[in-house]
Amino acid sequence: MGPLIDDLRAFLGARLLTSEAARAQHAENEAWYPPALPDAVARPATTEEVAQILRACRAHKVPVVAQGARTSLEGHHLATRGGIAIDMTGMDRVLAIHAEDLDVVVQPGVTREALNRDLRATGLFFPIDPGANATLGGMAATRASGTAAVRYGTMREAVLALEVVQADGQIIRTGTRARKSSTGYDLTHLFVGSEGTLGIITELTLRLHGQPEAQSAAICRFDTVENAVDTVTTTIQMGLPMARIELVDDAMVRGFNLSSDAGLVESPHLFIEFHGTEAGVAETAATFGEIAAEHGGHDFTWSTLPEERARLWSMRHGAHYAMRALRPGARSISTDVCVPISALAEAVSTARHEGDKLGLVQVIVGHVGDGNFHCGILVDPEDRAEIDRAHAFAKTLSDLALRLGGTISGEHGIGLGKRSKMRAEHGPAIETMRAIKRALDPEDILNPGKLLPDD
Amino acid sequence: MGPLIDDLRAFLGARLLTSEAARAQHAENEAWYPPALPDAVARPATTEEVAQILRACRAHKVPVVAQGARTSLEGHHLATRGGIAIDMTGMDRVLAIHAEDLDVVVQPGVTREALNRDLRATGLFFPIDPGANATLGGMAATRASGTAAVRYGTMREAVLALEVVQADGQIIRTGTRARKSSTGYDLTHLFVGSEGTLGIITELTLRLHGQPEAQSAAICRFDTVENAVDTVTTTIQMGLPMARIELVDDAMVRGFNLSSDAGLVESPHLFIEFHGTEAGVAETAATFGEIAAEHGGHDFTWSTLPEERARLWSMRHGAHYAMRALRPGARSISTDVCVPISALAEAVSTARHEGDKLGLVQVIVGHVGDGNFHCGILVDPEDRAEIDRAHAFAKTLSDLALRLGGTISGEHGIGLGKRSKMRAEHGPAIETMRAIKRALDPEDILNPGKLLPDD
Ligand SMILES: Cc1cc2nc3c(=O)[nH]c(=O)nc-3n(C[C@H](O)[C@H](O)[C@H](O)COP(=O)(O)OP(=O)(O)OC[C@H]3O[C@@H](n4cnc5c(N)ncnc54)[C@H](O)[C@@H]3O)c2cc1C
Ligand SMILES: Cc1cc2nc3c(=O)[nH]c(=O)nc-3n(C[C@H](O)[C@H](O)[C@H](O)COP(=O)(O)OP(=O)(O)OC[C@H]3O[C@@H](n4cnc5c(N)ncnc54)[C@H](O)[C@@H]3O)c2cc1C
Repeated sequence: MGPLIDDLRAFLGARLLTSEAARAQHAENEAWYPPALPDAVARPATTEEVAQILRACRAHKVPVVAQGARTSLEGHHLATRGGIAIDMTGMDRVLAIHAEDLDVVVQPGVTREALNRDLRATGLFFPIDPGANATLGGMAATRASGTAAVRYGTMREAVLALEVVQADGQIIRTGTRARKSSTGYDLTHLFVGSEGTLGIITELTLRLHGQPEAQSAAICRFDTVENAVDTVTTTIQMGLPMARIELVDDAMVRGFNLSSDAGLVESPHLFIEFHGTEAGVAETAATFGEIAAEHGGHDFTWSTLPEERARLWSMRHGAHYAMRALRPGARSISTDVCVPISALAEAVSTARHEGDKLGLVQVIVGHVGDGNFHCGILVDPEDRAEIDRAHAFAKTLSDLALRLGGTISGEHGIGLGKRSKMRAEHGPAIETMRAIKRALDPEDILNPGKLLPDD
Repeated sequence: MGPLIDDLRAFLGARLLTSEAARAQHAENEAWYPPALPDAVARPATTEEVAQILRACRAHKVPVVAQGARTSLEGHHLATRGGIAIDMTGMDRVLAIHAEDLDVVVQPGVTREALNRDLRATGLFFPIDPGANATLGGMAATRASGTAAVRYGTMREAVLALEVVQADGQIIRTGTRARKSSTGYDLTHLFVGSEGTLGIITELTLRLHGQPEAQSAAICRFDTVENAVDTVTTTIQMGLPMARIELVDDAMVRGFNLSSDAGLVESPHLFIEFHGTEAGVAETAATFGEIAAEHGGHDFTWSTLPEERARLWSMRHGAHYAMRALRPGARSISTDVCVPISALAEAVSTARHEGDKLGLVQVIVGHVGDGNFHCGILVDPEDRAEIDRAHAFAKTLSDLALRLGGTISGEHGIGLGKRSKMRAEHGPAIETMRAIKRALDPEDILNPGKLLPDD
């Protein structure tokens, strides 16, 4: 490691960190994975520096892992084999706003909140919202989505073009600022979701959207999760234009009440948002209210007041932390699946049932308009048997999603946590992925041990 | 070739065609490329047969090219190196309609018109409409789009999952029926647009959309192409929800008048379609009318009568043939670029100017809501110098699109025709594409000599 450190220090200077404190900080994660110390942390300022780092690491056959805001939930960014953590948060400039084309060019360390602050004056916004204030590079690398995907899509739809440094230090550009293209292999989509295993993203061109004329937030209570899910399914099948539609089950509502005095009735709820013209939003809200009532919804209320909207979504986005109020001292294990909408009711019911059978403390929240939901399991960090049951539950949920025609992760990704289920989803296509990985990173230096299962 | 033919005949029987007539039929194209005879034509009925064909061709190191409806415009499907043409049109079954999930599973030989016929009773439709009645396999392979892409996206957005036979005969599945997923490399998008060079698509799962409550067609005349384009740019920047917005220039209108007595004033026009609720469509049409008037539009009329809509779009979709009326006996060379919307006016003006400078007979039509337009050049098939000028023009147009931040093809693709411009667009990313091609098709048997430039 010493000679590599010297090589890197030569051009990074103080931006190569080797102190215990810096390494420990970059060893952490928001989920339950054990910390993993990198040997050093590099903080590049330019694409060329990223290329130099990769050339050096390749020469020394040392692993590199890119790190953004380190909010990923399956251990993606952990330096489990040591080596160099490349902290991308220093590359945080918005390079160009093309308001007339509804696109923006950013460095990968820009966070989605910072981007939206910079866009405020333009009347445009970047809609992809995973709750956490992740970096756009990290969001692209995990193919993130979040609450607004039902209307605006995910990072898959948002990324128009990328600049990427490959394992050998070669800098390439994928895509253009044109809205569509039919010129060769879609490398942009290949790098989106590749979790830092095929290249390091050093620049992104992203689609933007116009701020809607009107936005309204709504909330509706149900007696059962099934009634809430049936409401969602009906609205989606009817093509009702919703900007967000989120399920929170009774346990999660209890978590909100305990953690922030939300004062909600402790039964399942839908949190909804509508975007459109004043008249359109009112019409959609009214239609939604009727559908909800037909499915046993109560107390449907909606509001266009910005402070009401902000309150609702800050509560929803705090779910990951609020659920801990249900079991103080517990750690949460969060797992995520996505199924065709017609299978959502069965998937959610079965998930609850399986969790209960295992005696787990569980909450269910979900971007249900996409057929996507998360189970948060609260485990005693000292109770190995309980942790094992939680992991067994996550595997059961993956099998369930596959049986229903869905996927083992709608948005959190594979990282370390779901590698063992990759073959169940992809079968022999795993070998195709492996062939691509070998072609683009023959020495396996880019985030090794992630995404693909062991041979 | 003889031993391979024997191997194939053993399981294909009469579905292996070697007659001069069959080979000649599969040697043709709708564009200006010289015919290219395959050595034989295979008509598989199942995925397993496709796999057997590929295994045999690989063993004998003989090229294979998949063929759908053979409507591609850059020579994509031509067997320029002989070998086996795999005619996929016999695999033409709709396998499953999941109306409640808005998706459908089809074999690759289903055409988009056949699919929409089958869907009629469900209230759903498949929106991607390149005019030609192409197969869905061919459309996925070229990443096709067409008139409705401004609202519904392209094949990039439409394909949820694929079954693909790889060069070694391995059958893989990519994607699931879930709306989104974050599980590994996005192989679906890698095969979409790969022009039959990475694998043969044997099944597709496609997104559907609900038939809108109301649809209306509109037409508006302008004095100059620039005014028409400025109107488009404004509506797109405002986020006005249009389902189609097509530019036809004065020359093209003359073509419509000559070929089908359209009776239009011979100046540039926009053809538009709105989808939505009755009230929404009326409101959008009114807003559009105002914007057009501000940009010098005349005679804006709109109608919800189905026969009016049908008349407008059958005229528009006949453009490729109607333009020939401008110069009887001529052949058309059609070229396609796509630019950011803010550069559209400059791109269209420059294209007209360059065409005039070269003395070419030219029409411009375009899916301008995407920043995408086509120039159709009418050439005397006997006049080599004129054909060379037309090709030089196509190259100039590609350079122009790149200079303006766009792409050398919005939807027609690369095939044979644009290979020499691939490096100008992609730079060193060409080597990344080549590495992927080598990894997935090491013997280069899948549609060799297409898409990628020569070494
Ligand atoms: C409270 C909470 C709620 C969440 N809710 C959601 C949600 O609703 N939807 C959702 O999709 N996600 C959600 N997440 C997950 C998380 O926000 C995402 O995974 C995020 O997209 C990761 O971005 P990051 O900047 O934190 O990247 P990191 O976590 O630092 O890295 C993630 C992965 O991306 C790679 N990477 C990072 N930067 C680059 C780069 N420049 N080039 C190449 N690879 C790179 C890393 O190597 C790693 O593999 C949530 C997380 C938390 C903590
Ligand atoms: C009049 C006219 C108008 C057109 N307008 C448009 C337009 O507006 N927008 C647009 O996008 N296109 C347009 N096109 C182009 C054309 O329709 C498309 O390129 C079409 O998508 C090709 O489909 P196909 O079935 O004809 O495939 P083919 O032309 O037979 O093949 C095209 C390519 O796909 C490959 N391929 C075919 N089937 C498979 C398979 N099952 N697996 C793997 N590879 C396969 C072939 O090898 C070839 O490389 C137009 C064409 C015409 C003639």
